[in-house]
Amino acid sequence: MGAPLRFLTGITTTGTPHLGNYVGAIRPAVQASRRPGTENFYFLADYHALIKCDEPARIQRSTLEIAACWLAAGLDPEQVFFYRQSDIPEVTELTWLLTCVTGKGVLNRAHAYKAQVDKNTAAGVDVDAEVTMGLFMYPVLMAADILMFKAHRIPVGRDQVQHIEMARDMAQSFNHLYGEHLVLPEAQIDESVALLPGLDGRKMSKSYDNVIGLFSPRDQVRKQIFSIVTDSRAPGEPKDTEGSALFQIYQAFASAEETQKLREAYAAGIAWSDAKQLLFERIDREIAPMREKHEHLVNHPQELERILQAGAAKARGRATPFIRELRQAVGLRNLADVPGGTKKDKARASLPAFKQYREADGLFYFKFVDAQGRLLLQSAGFASPKEAGQFIAGLKASQALPQDGKAAPAAGVSSEQVHAALKELADSGN
Amino acid sequence: MGAPLRFLTGITTTGTPHLGNYVGAIRPAVQASRRPGTENFYFLADYHALIKCDEPARIQRSTLEIAACWLAAGLDPEQVFFYRQSDIPEVTELTWLLTCVTGKGVLNRAHAYKAQVDKNTAAGVDVDAEVTMGLFMYPVLMAADILMFKAHRIPVGRDQVQHIEMARDMAQSFNHLYGEHLVLPEAQIDESVALLPGLDGRKMSKSYDNVIGLFSPRDQVRKQIFSIVTDSRAPGEPKDTEGSALFQIYQAFASAEETQKLREAYAAGIAWSDAKQLLFERIDREIAPMREKHEHLVNHPQELERILQAGAAKARGRATPFIRELRQAVGLRNLADVPGGTKKDKARASLPAFKQYREADGLFYFKFVDAQGRLLLQSAGFASPKEAGQFIAGLKASQALPQDGKAAPAAGVSSEQVHAALKELADSGN
Repeated sequence: MGAPLRFLTGITTTGTPHLGNYVGAIRPAVQASRRPGTENFYFLADYHALIKCDEPARIQRSTLEIAACWLAAGLDPEQVFFYRQSDIPEVTELTWLLTCVTGKGVLNRAHAYKAQVDKNTAAGVDVDAEVTMGLFMYPVLMAADILMFKAHRIPVGRDQVQHIEMARDMAQSFNHLYGEHLVLPEAQIDESVALLPGLDGRKMSKSYDNVIGLFSPRDQVRKQIFSIVTDSRAPGEPKDTEGSALFQIYQAFASAEETQKLREAYAAGIAWSDAKQLLFERIDREIAPMREKHEHLVNHPQELERILQAGAAKARGRATPFIRELRQAVGLRNLADVPGGTKKDKARASLPAFKQYREADGLFYFKFVDAQGRLLLQSAGFASPKEAGQFIAGLKASQALPQDGKAAPAAGVSSEQVHAALKELADSGN
Repeated sequence: MGAPLRFLTGITTTGTPHLGNYVGAIRPAVQASRRPGTENFYFLADYHALIKCDEPARIQRSTLEIAACWLAAGLDPEQVFFYRQSDIPEVTELTWLLTCVTGKGVLNRAHAYKAQVDKNTAAGVDVDAEVTMGLFMYPVLMAADILMFKAHRIPVGRDQVQHIEMARDMAQSFNHLYGEHLVLPEAQIDESVALLPGLDGRKMSKSYDNVIGLFSPRDQVRKQIFSIVTDSRAPGEPKDTEGSALFQIYQAFASAEETQKLREAYAAGIAWSDAKQLLFERIDREIAPMREKHEHLVNHPQELERILQAGAAKARGRATPFIRELRQAVGLRNLADVPGGTKKDKARASLPAFKQYREADGLFYFKFVDAQGRLLLQSAGFASPKEAGQFIAGLKASQALPQDGKAAPAAGVSSEQVHAALKELADSGN
């Protein structure tokens, strides 16, 4: 109801996409970008790339390659927000604002950092050997990416869930100190995402050197496909689909009907070379129509650059006013603004609002007041700002009061009035 | 010779200046800002203020107060760079670039962080309790403040020297990876800076609640001065200047002659109340002419805001092209820029340059080449990029080759040619 659901996806710019990226990330994202009632943000995460890559030309080249691949695969920059992270300098500003509300203890617990610490401990060297602040601060930058655009859902793998939790925590800390400005994001884990096997049967990954390039020249793709490891059964011998990388890759591209046909061919003893030829043709049928666009873009970087600049302008249309609001909230203000008397304050003041605070008992409370400041709801005490924030998020989502006694309408306020005020707030996009 | 020497000073915006700030910081800085052959940068460090202050109105009010005080004390925004840190968003961008080249181990050793860790350890709580990432990242933001404007000298107290060393280290790491872009700053410790005693004889400091307001109303200043702690000697009894806070404060404002007169009055047994009246009048004589301007500015915040906006535009005149150069260096580039073929690359290519690199022996080397890429100097191996960087900084400063054998002219190159190339580089401001 009200504002559309916003999804956000970052793409690190340190490589060239392969078929595994296409099946696991690009294709589903392009499909998802067309869902009605959603806004979709895709960005080339080049600030992130700097954490692990100090080769400037590689970052530039990879940004070009990845942008060309996503566009060739059908992402429509008119329908989505498609931008390069470093074109939105507001992101580094927000990173600093979040840095100031993040406990160091939170980052000490980040998986990627802890993995390096464990490695160092096992090697008997200083725990922080080889750890750059880029690695340590990664979750804060990622939180800024997400919170900058008020994203609701972040499609991620299980290994990234912790980062989304951290972004929620930072948003809650910020909101607790400065008022309800940031939207709490949620991780969206898609268990059904296809993990494509590579040439050797392991997960397709550049680090295993077993990939098939997405837009490599056709004869090279064919060669790579013909090098897929198979067993030694001769033509005419029935073959197992179970554990056959070739079969799994085929399945990722084929219809159910086509897959069934290949299954029958396996049982009937199709020669491996014929099966490989089938696979090559099936993949080529899907990729070929995109090849021309990819090649055109890679050869016309100024056109790509224009698309990215337009995307940046569109994204900054959101980021610039929002960072202004956040700067105002923390006190980075025009000196001539009378506190509490700015236009924004007045616009905000004409909406119902949640006010969070802490009492002398050490617990965290909130009030929900209408545009005139009249008390609508009063909460009981919560053990942490996180719990209070979750409760508020629940209220906003359901627009109704749960019967658990954690918050009650003020005297003379009906639950319909509470519902109406929650709805008004939701419709305003706050 | 060549470019002017650049000085940079940050002022944290969390309080209202008192006489101790005036004598110890504002007055000497205003005097220093008039030295010929220098460029002087003064900024209101409001991003820093966010680290310890989550009261927005206080940050806004303090920014106004501090800006008004510095201008009233005679800082001329036409002659210096006077700006609010948060008006230069390039600073947070540079913060991220530096974050990626800073080892976490470096920040683990920062005094302010370690002090909190020691406190936590003594209290038996988690070492990182109450440590925000703002506190931990403080030295990186400070390095960005300094490196953004290629500052050579940073006037600081002894407790800040470590931060300047860290900024040097970050600059060296960056230059080692991406070429010689950042200027290595040096701390400038002025031992003669007057530490003003407060009302109770301890150092004047808000945390001791013993301050005299710089622009408090006159009668309040008088009242404060009359509350300065003295001994109980009666009028007519000779008094000690040694250990007399009153005398020390007087000395900070008086000429040598005036000071001598008060010394004689002490010996002759001046009454404390008369001495206090003298002190009040002496301070008032210096401050009174500034009062009007201070009051005008505080009451016309839109005028102050205009001055700060003009200062920001002037500062961004440096920051914007420089961050563009740095973005280019790390690979955040326009996709249509052919690597190595941009205008900036070409301008740079017409100057002599230092090229740092690492050899298979694990040591760090540099070459110094002329605009056409001809080898002028070849270094021996250094144990660390820091040592190589220090050697290069020495070369740039002296514009002559030391006889220590750590670098030798290439075959057929005279030491005059090396000198001329070093001079050309210095004159270009690089």
